[in-house]
Amino acid sequence: MERGLGGEVDMKKLQVIKIGGNVIDNPAELEKFLTNFSAISDLKILVHGGGKVATELAKRLGIEQEMVNGRRITDAETLKVTAMVYAGLINKQIVASLQAKDCNAIGLSGADGNAIKSSKRKVIDIDYGFVGDIDSKGVNVDFISVLLESAVSPVFSAITHNGEGQLLNTNADTIASALAVALSKKYEVQLNYCFEKSGVLRDVEDDNSVINTITKESYKQLLSEGVIFKGMIPKLDNAFDAIRNGVSAVMIAHSKDLTSITKGNGNTGTKLIA
Amino acid sequence: MERGLGGEVDMKKLQVIKIGGNVIDNPAELEKFLTNFSAISDLKILVHGGGKVATELAKRLGIEQEMVNGRRITDAETLKVTAMVYAGLINKQIVASLQAKDCNAIGLSGADGNAIKSSKRKVIDIDYGFVGDIDSKGVNVDFISVLLESAVSPVFSAITHNGEGQLLNTNADTIASALAVALSKKYEVQLNYCFEKSGVLRDVEDDNSVINTITKESYKQLLSEGVIFKGMIPKLDNAFDAIRNGVSAVMIAHSKDLTSITKGNGNTGTKLIA
Repeated sequence: MERGLGGEVDMKKLQVIKIGGNVIDNPAELEKFLTNFSAISDLKILVHGGGKVATELAKRLGIEQEMVNGRRITDAETLKVTAMVYAGLINKQIVASLQAKDCNAIGLSGADGNAIKSSKRKVIDIDYGFVGDIDSKGVNVDFISVLLESAVSPVFSAITHNGEGQLLNTNADTIASALAVALSKKYEVQLNYCFEKSGVLRDVEDDNSVINTITKESYKQLLSEGVIFKGMIPKLDNAFDAIRNGVSAVMIAHSKDLTSITKGNGNTGTKLIA
Repeated sequence: MERGLGGEVDMKKLQVIKIGGNVIDNPAELEKFLTNFSAISDLKILVHGGGKVATELAKRLGIEQEMVNGRRITDAETLKVTAMVYAGLINKQIVASLQAKDCNAIGLSGADGNAIKSSKRKVIDIDYGFVGDIDSKGVNVDFISVLLESAVSPVFSAITHNGEGQLLNTNADTIASALAVALSKKYEVQLNYCFEKSGVLRDVEDDNSVINTITKESYKQLLSEGVIFKGMIPKLDNAFDAIRNGVSAVMIAHSKDLTSITKGNGNTGTKLIA
């Protein structure tokens, strides 16, 4: 660690990267993405869900799936499907692939090492079932730091636990931002949302309409203009929360641009700033 | 660490415990077993497969299962089933349950942290498919030691990797003995096989016919008398291999006797000695 001009100890840079379901569903894209992930020289964490694979498995097993506001209603049988697909199949395939690329990855659910604790979502209007909301002190910074400092890169699946023996299906975007916020006490954290679009778009049909920078102020403006695509709003709300709570930068970009956004080249994706 | 009478540094005691499929299939037995596991004060590692759950899932998905000599022929679809059930569902349920019992467990496949590397079994008479045999230097002693020394208890599922991106279904008994042997360089290791019988039985129908001690010599005798139940022979061969390679003791016992065998009370189960 070096001392900055102000005399304070510079913190190491940590990249927290969420990968979207469409990338996971495309083996060639995933392979390229993992190659780029392996090459990142900063400390790094990967977060993934499972998307279509879980839905397909549930279908084959005859377990009906219900989505509300893009969130999966998780009954006991669906929880098993998500644990199998997210924490088992996809997580271990990603980890094995990273190991082959000389990236020493470790696959984790929130239960492992008590890494992320959550609470079952309270029923207000909708009963989401076995869905977890991460507790404010739910991220085990000490444990995750031990891994990072041992040059091991955690790969988190979208499963957490409540500390009382219950696994909980947990939104991967939220896991990424909770990790980023909690770890910003020890690291200079950049949070990156990688998906199948080139960033936040002015026109959702036009991949060339990327908005390069969004500030808290311009976000309000864009919202009032109705420019922001509805599915993007929870992601952006999450992102601005993260910035308010210590994360140094948030990027939203195409998965193929991972190298450029983590290097901060600044000409790809959307950068969110305070 | 204390110095022994001979002046050498005493090694810490490590319990490597393999739990059988019949215990996993019985929620009440499993719960009791995990409570006892949590209470062990030595360093400890748990190893599990998945047994019937994988077979049932394969059946529901219409994936035909073929067993040869008690080993599962693992085609690509079956490998996915085992990764989902062993490394996903069962592993994470066990870890969440241990966390609730204040045991800081971490679920691992061999790919995680490059913990266990194996090679795809060569086809001689039978093509076992995606089945791994553990390499002689396949166990990552340094990584596993870091976890143990941080008071984290690894829980291994029966999935390893070949270092080239391929997951491999791997016999859980063999994982347990490979871990025990490799870790005996740093620890005084006791290897414990826990299952639904009270030990190695003279009469497989009579749970009171436990053979308390088997030596290498008496094993030969028992084999020639045809006393040893066929399904037990690979387990015993494995066990004597482990003893030959540095493991200090091997116990074969009922899962309900975990506390007594790890405390070395000596009046339950079968003890194998050189």
